[in-house]
Amino acid sequence: MANAYLQVIAHYFAKPGNGNGNGNGNAIVEHLTELAAATRAEPKNLYYEFFRSPLEPDHFVILEQYSDAGGLAEHRDTEHFQRLGFGTIVPLLERREVSSHMVPGEAA
Amino acid sequence: MANAYLQVIAHYFAKPGNGNGNGNGNAIVEHLTELAAATRAEPKNLYYEFFRSPLEPDHFVILEQYSDAGGLAEHRDTEHFQRLGFGTIVPLLERREVSSHMVPGEAA
Repeated sequence: MANAYLQVIAHYFAKPGNGNGNGNGNAIVEHLTELAAATRAEPKNLYYEFFRSPLEPDHFVILEQYSDAGGLAEHRDTEHFQRLGFGTIVPLLERREVSSHMVPGEAA
Repeated sequence: MANAYLQVIAHYFAKPGNGNGNGNGNAIVEHLTELAAATRAEPKNLYYEFFRSPLEPDHFVILEQYSDAGGLAEHRDTEHFQRLGFGTIVPLLERREVSSHMVPGEAA
């Protein structure tokens, strides 16, 4: 038996680094680590993990799950997302693509 | 306007390496690179990319999209998945978790 949930798939594309060790990408790892811990403490958050392409290290994927359709909007309103997401990480990005959709629950 | 599609999220957890440079994880990157190229040529495949956790490098995520609900089963039946997936990559894994769900199309 599984309940319905909101699945979020976010693609973050870092601005290319200065050639000195993928600076933006490595900074993003650090900030996402802090954002992940804060997000997992949100009441509607079920899952938050982030990943990086081995072939294109400026390309990150964040997988998030929330217990209802409003969870993502509430996440974006938190102090930690305003500060770490919009304030710190987004300025390091060239672009981002975020999709979200409800996954139906299964019958018991 | 977007058509409905099957979204697949696969988590692959490599067997821990021998301490000598995350051997299984790095081998998996190599094999997934080959599998990705072959999978993108399948008629129903819309997207295939793989990612690795910076914090837990034995944890991989594969994001796949197919144009209908049968696309994943047909992918698993291909020669390249039988050989590279089941034959080569799966034996390097401790476990895997694969979820798939249809994402409804949007009205024009």
